[in-house]
Amino acid sequence: MSDIYIGVDVGGTNIKFGVFDKDLNILSKSSIEAKVDAGAEVMVDRIGSHIEKIVTDNKYTMKDVKAVGMGSTGQFNLTEGIMYSCPNMPLFKNVPIKKMLSDRTCKPCVIENDANTACYGEYACGAGQGSDNMVFFTLGTGIGGGIILNGKLVHGTDDSGGELGHIIIHPGGRLCGCGQRGCIEAYASASSTARRATEAVIACEPSVLREVLDQKGRITCKDVFVHAAKGDKLAEKIADETARDLAIVCIIMRHVTEPHKFVFAGGMIAAGEPLLNAIKKHFADMIWSMKKEDVEICFAQLGEDAGIIGAAALARDIK
Amino acid sequence: MSDIYIGVDVGGTNIKFGVFDKDLNILSKSSIEAKVDAGAEVMVDRIGSHIEKIVTDNKYTMKDVKAVGMGSTGQFNLTEGIMYSCPNMPLFKNVPIKKMLSDRTCKPCVIENDANTACYGEYACGAGQGSDNMVFFTLGTGIGGGIILNGKLVHGTDDSGGELGHIIIHPGGRLCGCGQRGCIEAYASASSTARRATEAVIACEPSVLREVLDQKGRITCKDVFVHAAKGDKLAEKIADETARDLAIVCIIMRHVTEPHKFVFAGGMIAAGEPLLNAIKKHFADMIWSMKKEDVEICFAQLGEDAGIIGAAALARDIK
Repeated sequence: MSDIYIGVDVGGTNIKFGVFDKDLNILSKSSIEAKVDAGAEVMVDRIGSHIEKIVTDNKYTMKDVKAVGMGSTGQFNLTEGIMYSCPNMPLFKNVPIKKMLSDRTCKPCVIENDANTACYGEYACGAGQGSDNMVFFTLGTGIGGGIILNGKLVHGTDDSGGELGHIIIHPGGRLCGCGQRGCIEAYASASSTARRATEAVIACEPSVLREVLDQKGRITCKDVFVHAAKGDKLAEKIADETARDLAIVCIIMRHVTEPHKFVFAGGMIAAGEPLLNAIKKHFADMIWSMKKEDVEICFAQLGEDAGIIGAAALARDIK
Repeated sequence: MSDIYIGVDVGGTNIKFGVFDKDLNILSKSSIEAKVDAGAEVMVDRIGSHIEKIVTDNKYTMKDVKAVGMGSTGQFNLTEGIMYSCPNMPLFKNVPIKKMLSDRTCKPCVIENDANTACYGEYACGAGQGSDNMVFFTLGTGIGGGIILNGKLVHGTDDSGGELGHIIIHPGGRLCGCGQRGCIEAYASASSTARRATEAVIACEPSVLREVLDQKGRITCKDVFVHAAKGDKLAEKIADETARDLAIVCIIMRHVTEPHKFVFAGGMIAAGEPLLNAIKKHFADMIWSMKKEDVEICFAQLGEDAGIIGAAALARDIK
């Protein structure tokens, strides 16, 4: 009999699964549709059935499954395992999802929000391996965050700590979806980067992005980085501002938890070395001179598997 | 035989001492001159002698002393107990002060920087009592910080986490003593608040602070708050900007460690309720609308004893 762990990554559209051995090697990956409109009970039952299937497919039995970890979008009481609410899943209100999943699978379960789950995955098996003190950012439509301190995720008093996208870096600045002004998310997420470029083009700043907007009807963050790499001045400026703002939030976090490593994840890191180097340059230019800083700034390594890997790692580390 | 603890608070001018019972009640307080020019060995020996004296004065023997805690200005390797450097004590470079103190007193010792020590004092016996997750600011010449998470101080990778005065809130803004631009310390410390007022007066903004400057040759932070309370428009504006900037840094920290309590200490809190209420108002005005925040914002309770109390509490909690 071997110990295996199941990692589950719940999104608004699909639910991803991974079967892992005790060293967190992936034995198999799969996914099912989320079908969030059917409600929580149906979803949990379908998750349970799919876990039984993939365990059998891997020639194990449910007796081999030591624990199940689940990462999900939404707001949680993590200790109690209750999903308060989730923008993508309007039927899920105050759902005791940890207990439901544990009852369905007859296994110890752990739940965590998606950014923290990915953070824990990178810490356990990816770019953050060995860094007991790290800070993690996902750069997508929004900016998610995670903090590892002494090898554990920081949750905060009411399980909404580590909301690093809502650190204010430009007081009184751009309105964020959260209701604050000047959040890093309102400047340096993929969608905010695209939005700043679009506004500049509409304000008639000269750029090849004008043609992109005319042809496609919109400018994406990828367009900004692609044309910055080709030397378009406006795209370079927008991309550089994004890197500078990400460096500012790194400096802020350096003075708070003084991490050993900053790890960036999410779609935007497809921009590659130019983005990473620009963040490092601005960090070095703006950081204090009180002591030499040798913090590492790097990209995540696990890509889209970070969620299932992190969930399995959390399952392995259940105390 | 009773257990007692000694708390020591080392400043550039004086060294304060407290004798504490096991419930951290103060049995006696005293102080000696720091005489930093005599070097570390002499200072540690004088500290040891004074501890022997105050223990005897309180009708105990050194056998009753369970541990000694020391808070000090300076930069440390806290695990090793080494003082790297200290602006006030130029002779103290790479001094293994914890070992020296432990050897001199034959007791377990703990050292901590001064802001963290005061933070721990407020957590153990003051405004932060019962808050396992709190954030602490001292508002003086600079802005010091401390973070309690799960009942423990956050130290960071190289023992310089919790440097909350160097959180950047106005990128590209005022130059801070640390070399960065836009630190909260460069805006909202007592000396920066006084400096902003002085600059405004020199720039001919009308205010009774003009007379203060002419008569005393300088404007203090206290002058700003006194005249703000009396209705001087410029003083009101400067004081309100300080409160707003402190609220911004509270919002930032809310999204990082999501504390249960923010505690402000230091000379500036003599400004009293108007300052506290203004910080609370700006916090409420600027914080996100994603969830209702019921974090408490309050003033410290231990005054100048926070250092010796915190040091004794750290001594009590040596593992």
